[in-house]
Amino acid sequence: MLYEINEKAIRLENQGKKIIRLNLGDPDLATPTEIVEAAYAAMKAGKTKYSSAYGEEKLRQKLAKIHGVKAENVVITPGSKWGVFATLYLTMKAGGNIIIPTPYWTAYDLMAKSIGAQTRLLRTEMEDGWKVDLCKLEALIDKNTKMIILNNPNNPTSKVMDSKTLDSIVEIANKKGITILSDEVYGPISFVKTKSILEYDGNNTHVLSNGFSKMFTMTGWRIGYIIANKPLIDNITKLNQITINNVPVFIQEAALKGLEMQKNLTKTIEKEYAQRAKIACKTLVKAGLSFTEPEAPFYVFPKRKGLDSEKFTLDLLDKGVAVAPGTAFGDYREHFRISLTAPREEIKVGLDKISEALK
Amino acid sequence: MLYEINEKAIRLENQGKKIIRLNLGDPDLATPTEIVEAAYAAMKAGKTKYSSAYGEEKLRQKLAKIHGVKAENVVITPGSKWGVFATLYLTMKAGGNIIIPTPYWTAYDLMAKSIGAQTRLLRTEMEDGWKVDLCKLEALIDKNTKMIILNNPNNPTSKVMDSKTLDSIVEIANKKGITILSDEVYGPISFVKTKSILEYDGNNTHVLSNGFSKMFTMTGWRIGYIIANKPLIDNITKLNQITINNVPVFIQEAALKGLEMQKNLTKTIEKEYAQRAKIACKTLVKAGLSFTEPEAPFYVFPKRKGLDSEKFTLDLLDKGVAVAPGTAFGDYREHFRISLTAPREEIKVGLDKISEALK
Repeated sequence: MLYEINEKAIRLENQGKKIIRLNLGDPDLATPTEIVEAAYAAMKAGKTKYSSAYGEEKLRQKLAKIHGVKAENVVITPGSKWGVFATLYLTMKAGGNIIIPTPYWTAYDLMAKSIGAQTRLLRTEMEDGWKVDLCKLEALIDKNTKMIILNNPNNPTSKVMDSKTLDSIVEIANKKGITILSDEVYGPISFVKTKSILEYDGNNTHVLSNGFSKMFTMTGWRIGYIIANKPLIDNITKLNQITINNVPVFIQEAALKGLEMQKNLTKTIEKEYAQRAKIACKTLVKAGLSFTEPEAPFYVFPKRKGLDSEKFTLDLLDKGVAVAPGTAFGDYREHFRISLTAPREEIKVGLDKISEALK
Repeated sequence: MLYEINEKAIRLENQGKKIIRLNLGDPDLATPTEIVEAAYAAMKAGKTKYSSAYGEEKLRQKLAKIHGVKAENVVITPGSKWGVFATLYLTMKAGGNIIIPTPYWTAYDLMAKSIGAQTRLLRTEMEDGWKVDLCKLEALIDKNTKMIILNNPNNPTSKVMDSKTLDSIVEIANKKGITILSDEVYGPISFVKTKSILEYDGNNTHVLSNGFSKMFTMTGWRIGYIIANKPLIDNITKLNQITINNVPVFIQEAALKGLEMQKNLTKTIEKEYAQRAKIACKTLVKAGLSFTEPEAPFYVFPKRKGLDSEKFTLDLLDKGVAVAPGTAFGDYREHFRISLTAPREEIKVGLDKISEALK
């Protein structure tokens, strides 16, 4: 129901209604001016032609350097979403199942369904601090298990996986020959240290998905990347050639500009969202909700016993606040997701309306 | 081998070699300044966020008006290529076969293979003016035939389908309940009148694929659209939601600007390519090649009896001219494709080198 809520919010806005949008991971902050100017300069310089389906060499090299891999292990994608879809599409063609811890980012399951791959959901609970139960994980694995999708930091909980658990998951996957697809889009701006999948295997088995959307407030620019072994990178590139062809070069230049300024930009973003999270937690505690404190942008995923979050979400939208129901992230009807991606004043008004609606 | 040639050409250029690029449908002309400025203005206005997977309402409405359909029949895609892929992916999931006249645009067959759909190739010959043989078409159709892909005007022949043949194909398709996917990206800039699939059925059965790339010299911007019945549009949108999400809004604003200036822009482009075609034809006749005269941009698809065009193409690339071998468009080893998408002076040098190599 995540996308339905969003399309409905857009419709209401088109009708002239004011909606406080706390339903998407789409930051209110503007894309930094330097990034916009880099795109404009590139357009004017004629970088508006077809280009390599691998992505621009300069950008691949820069990313390779950042992640300690080779440029041949990097492919540029129109958003990290496309990178995840392409990886699943290519890996799961011949059948098999995918294990996904829940709550999860809605798109994973929808992608798997679209491709025709089976998913096995590995439930985690707020009461356990959203920790993956390794015994449950091992019990879900069979000979047809091809992949485990990790989202670290997690959407919708904004929880970072503790490194011990991650160590164990990697160990299990390696032992069983299962690929981990690690979606780390919130990693570069998380509030606490987040261990990357690349720290494990020098990029031979597992797959990193990342993007510029969250890191540099570039959501609508649609640019991300995959880091993986060369055969998979080559196959994603072949898929790019017959689907999206290439990410516009001027957008790649803009992303490159972002990387050059990365330290300052991500620091600013991280700080702003850490403060927003603090404000939100205070209000939500008062409203009698339970939740784990965010360790990364942008979400809080509170719970109220007995809540029907789908009904709650639709009612709240009519009152002018868009959030996402817990059911969009798995079997979490008593939860809902708040994105702290609006100016602080709006967040405050939104949180007050949420508190009011919960009375 | 189309994409291999291109990646090799890029590699040679990265090594500092000068390559005359007549291998892609990527015009040398710059994207019109007004379009670039519209994109910049939109970026600065903050149109850099996630947006509807259907595309922007304003742009859908403008396209609907142009084509005489409703906005609900339009979805915006990152290039017409994505529109074709999405249509095939959704239509052919349950199996079945697709009929494609050859020579064809390479991507159709590669897409079908990737999706796992069967293709049935319907050969046409230069000697018959590339006309579809209706008896052969009927013989290829069986109960599993789901789709016929037309590319009108055609890439690589730049031939426009005569309206009688098109009438008959539509009649056959309607009778048998087969969907025609009509890729008309070269239509708005063709040198002769091109009949659109939309002139037939008020958009109930068949599918139009179109794009801004060729029309406005916006190849690298990656924006196109599909016009179809609402259920298919809704399904493509759902696929967009889990893959590319949306075409950047600032790119949609740029495309809208193009449409506002359409008449002037397409006239200029059409005129330039008509003149280039004239120049090319003269040289190619002298070189002893046979071909049909282009009725649309950007290609000539000449034949030399006994030619091994793959070997020829690779040798020619080493001499600094990139063209595409006929085998990239079906079983046409004696043909090769020249794209007239370089400045006239370069085209002349390229054609001279081609003539030289054929001696």
